[in-house]
Amino acid sequence: MLQSNPQLLPQRMPQSTETAVMVIGGAEDKIHGREILQTFYNRSGAADAQIAIIPCASREPVVIGARYHEIFGEMGAKTIEILNIEDREQGKNIQWQAFLETCTGVFMTGGDQLRLYALLADTPVMEKVRIRAQLGEITLAGTSAGAAVMGQHMIAGGGSGESPNRSLVDLTAGLNIIPEVIVDQHFHNRNRMARLMSAIAAYPDKLGLGIDEDTCAMFAGNGSFQVIGKGTITVIDPSQISYTNQPDVENTDPLSIHNLRVHILSPGDRFDLYKRAILPKAR
Amino acid sequence: MLQSNPQLLPQRMPQSTETAVMVIGGAEDKIHGREILQTFYNRSGAADAQIAIIPCASREPVVIGARYHEIFGEMGAKTIEILNIEDREQGKNIQWQAFLETCTGVFMTGGDQLRLYALLADTPVMEKVRIRAQLGEITLAGTSAGAAVMGQHMIAGGGSGESPNRSLVDLTAGLNIIPEVIVDQHFHNRNRMARLMSAIAAYPDKLGLGIDEDTCAMFAGNGSFQVIGKGTITVIDPSQISYTNQPDVENTDPLSIHNLRVHILSPGDRFDLYKRAILPKAR
Repeated sequence: MLQSNPQLLPQRMPQSTETAVMVIGGAEDKIHGREILQTFYNRSGAADAQIAIIPCASREPVVIGARYHEIFGEMGAKTIEILNIEDREQGKNIQWQAFLETCTGVFMTGGDQLRLYALLADTPVMEKVRIRAQLGEITLAGTSAGAAVMGQHMIAGGGSGESPNRSLVDLTAGLNIIPEVIVDQHFHNRNRMARLMSAIAAYPDKLGLGIDEDTCAMFAGNGSFQVIGKGTITVIDPSQISYTNQPDVENTDPLSIHNLRVHILSPGDRFDLYKRAILPKAR
Repeated sequence: MLQSNPQLLPQRMPQSTETAVMVIGGAEDKIHGREILQTFYNRSGAADAQIAIIPCASREPVVIGARYHEIFGEMGAKTIEILNIEDREQGKNIQWQAFLETCTGVFMTGGDQLRLYALLADTPVMEKVRIRAQLGEITLAGTSAGAAVMGQHMIAGGGSGESPNRSLVDLTAGLNIIPEVIVDQHFHNRNRMARLMSAIAAYPDKLGLGIDEDTCAMFAGNGSFQVIGKGTITVIDPSQISYTNQPDVENTDPLSIHNLRVHILSPGDRFDLYKRAILPKAR
């Protein structure tokens, strides 16, 4: 019966209009194909999109907010609001909370992830974004600093050009939207393998995601993500670590980390966060 | 009986006077503790050391040769010869061949690995060095360019700051002293993870060794190495790779490489090249 009446089955939404959480490695294409931003727009409802831009990571929020407003406006979004929160009091703004109730997409820009966290963590505005994103009611994207805040733990800063060591990475709390991951961005572009390895040695229950520029980990509701964009995502899976000296050494001592599993994923590749396994390709 | 007469057992040579092949990531300490250079000196016989310096990778071989001559001289080496080979004809030099028959240590400096290869590959001088090193008759050290030439395949150059891709690395033939490895040096210092990953995707039967500055992989005759110095050695083991698109993509396309095993090794860590396994710590 079911097979003979497929039209009676609940229609699964076509994938391209499903919501997603999009973790972008910074420097996404804003001019040519705009693949990542276009995907965000489509996943936010395309011509029906009601988009909130959160530019608070940036010290030039008006400039960067206007830039994304122009892009999503050109694409044809129905409504766009820039939530230029300049102090934590504004994180309680009633109009913005109301807009976030009805919006379909939220975009967090680049800048300084500590600034973004300090202005927004635990505010009613951010809680609304987090809960609706986790429920799959909206598409949430963050690029660069906006990507760094996605995990429970956040790489707030650090160095490069050194051997992995504890002092190479500054770890603080993140916005906890995807608790399982520690994100680093501009990854191969800015020599951040050693600092992400150092972060993972400190939290071997997490999964390291090193996201290159113009590249995005697009998470679906089922805990899997797909790579889109132009570069790679480096997955550092410490679940089989057999030894690390991380707890025992001084801050600047070089780290030992034995038996990491590492995947280099290119566009089209898919990964299951919970099973920690590669999935069949999407393309 | 044996236990009561330990002095009758054949004495194992103290480890510090065994020969070794020392693969150094460049910028080794030449001023303070000189740990790596002192180890090379000790493993070459200390006060009995007869050392050949091969400065041919450098475009200033006289200057760099004199620098190492001074260092090993200060340490107390018995004899030091600088083999300043400036054309392949000199690679047949009879006096130098004779010195290499009796020498106890050979040190290859930094510079350009392609220059070193072009001047020395398959010359009688280099063949003598290679064979005596592989037989364990001498200690052979190479730093930076002198380290790059150690494998069967050599990273001749490449880029950084990009996602792993085939065009990121130039691979040519090496001097084939440790055929099993592909060496990259100044590793975390110069953001070379992506290029070593790209090299390993092309030759997944090899083992990638990313050696940081002032750090050395010291190989014993049994195919194991120990880390000495100040930084880390990153081992990229592709023996369990489940998929790579390397053969199928265009040169600049981002690579997929699934299921790499990666070890970050710090000083004292030991690794078995043939078993591809961590060994108990030396210290």
